[in-house]
Amino acid sequence: MTSPHTFDTAIALTPTAEGEYTGATSPAYANMVGPFGGVTAAVALNAVLQHPALLGEPVALTVNFCAALADGAFTATARPPRTNRSTQHWVIELAQGGETVMTATAMTAARRETWSVDDEPMPTVPAPNTVPDPTQSPQVEWVNRYQMRFIEGGIPSEWDGVGGSSQTQLWVREAAPRSLDFCSIAALADVFFPRVWLRRATRVPVGTVSMTVYFHAGAAPLAEIGHGWVLGQARAQAFRNGFFDHTAQLWSEGGHLLATSHQVVYYKE
Amino acid sequence: MTSPHTFDTAIALTPTAEGEYTGATSPAYANMVGPFGGVTAAVALNAVLQHPALLGEPVALTVNFCAALADGAFTATARPPRTNRSTQHWVIELAQGGETVMTATAMTAARRETWSVDDEPMPTVPAPNTVPDPTQSPQVEWVNRYQMRFIEGGIPSEWDGVGGSSQTQLWVREAAPRSLDFCSIAALADVFFPRVWLRRATRVPVGTVSMTVYFHAGAAPLAEIGHGWVLGQARAQAFRNGFFDHTAQLWSEGGHLLATSHQVVYYKE
Repeated sequence: MTSPHTFDTAIALTPTAEGEYTGATSPAYANMVGPFGGVTAAVALNAVLQHPALLGEPVALTVNFCAALADGAFTATARPPRTNRSTQHWVIELAQGGETVMTATAMTAARRETWSVDDEPMPTVPAPNTVPDPTQSPQVEWVNRYQMRFIEGGIPSEWDGVGGSSQTQLWVREAAPRSLDFCSIAALADVFFPRVWLRRATRVPVGTVSMTVYFHAGAAPLAEIGHGWVLGQARAQAFRNGFFDHTAQLWSEGGHLLATSHQVVYYKE
Repeated sequence: MTSPHTFDTAIALTPTAEGEYTGATSPAYANMVGPFGGVTAAVALNAVLQHPALLGEPVALTVNFCAALADGAFTATARPPRTNRSTQHWVIELAQGGETVMTATAMTAARRETWSVDDEPMPTVPAPNTVPDPTQSPQVEWVNRYQMRFIEGGIPSEWDGVGGSSQTQLWVREAAPRSLDFCSIAALADVFFPRVWLRRATRVPVGTVSMTVYFHAGAAPLAEIGHGWVLGQARAQAFRNGFFDHTAQLWSEGGHLLATSHQVVYYKE
């Protein structure tokens, strides 16, 4: 028997009733405070995907980080307040010690083939095997779970307050081979280090407060990509009075837009 | 006594208990099926803003359109599952006849002055008074509630299937003078006609399923703009198997980014 992938262990949920689960944070995804938010987002989505009443595949997911998770156990609940013929709406909450630590909503749908086109073309970038691995050592544990090759907008090597563009482009995939699926896409959507650090070349305390992911690729195309590289791009739009947002895209190496995402992040000072 | 603005009547809520309200759809905002989604989004936000336990001002709002509202009464509930020192998280639901028609989450915060910068500059566009009003008559009632002057990407004059760019830029404001506030920004975020109509110059059945708004301007700067023009810009990112997304920005005429928004929309065929 092969042991499960670290990511699957981290997002594992044990059902205790219909739509009710227990889970636990994973030291493998430790961040500055609490776990990597991308994994917590994946847990919220997993609570939907494990639900026996699930209809279709994820189209939209919004997670709200209400508080930093403490290391240890949590509970998750997912309920579908509305099920239509081909779409379903979900409300999700994660709690620790009876206190809400995440609220979330999701929309799933039975998708049909239609006229389709990518309108945000993948930028022209060097191939993954021509981009070097970072020379800096990760400051937090979860970063070791991914291979990240920065094309543009890597973590500043000097925190000199100079800064510039808020845009990052990087090739990214799991460090240990694992095929892409909706949960790993949800996590990848949160893989970008804080735009305010890049824009200002200054480390200030930060925390994502809300993230939305729109899934443009279904389960089958994601599985076909397997452990392939994903091109991630993120760019801030506004930094204002303690909160900034960013807009992000994830493409397959073949140039298909897999997901788009947005988040709003608290920053101090 | 002056009569209230049509928008205020449409988003009005009568409290029935703490965080519980009744409201009713307004014929002034009728869309193809049910009311203009932007007004329903504003109602969800209003349920938070009217709550006696409210902390701070809105930073993030996500609304999920579970079903078209029927003309008539609805109930709204807003509860704050988590209140921190300076942020608060909200879960909102709208229902008709006991069935959920909208789920939503919001985050409010007591914002402090910090280092701030707009990173998505307002595009260079002609001034509002140099852009003509549309010559086409609105097909739906709610459009009459706004003045819209299209700079780029107006509603196709010929539905010939040719299409092109999915980007729209327009100057927009309420037709009847009303000062900007969070609820009107939430509604303006949904003012863009469906990108799929523009991209394909083809009318296909559509419906927004989820929309997120990040508020970058506080109540005071919004009030200062008053009844000023707002520059709206929206562009699709992907059309795929029945759903497309768009990313949108709203700037003041003075060039300040007031809000950013994203939505995912169902389309048939």
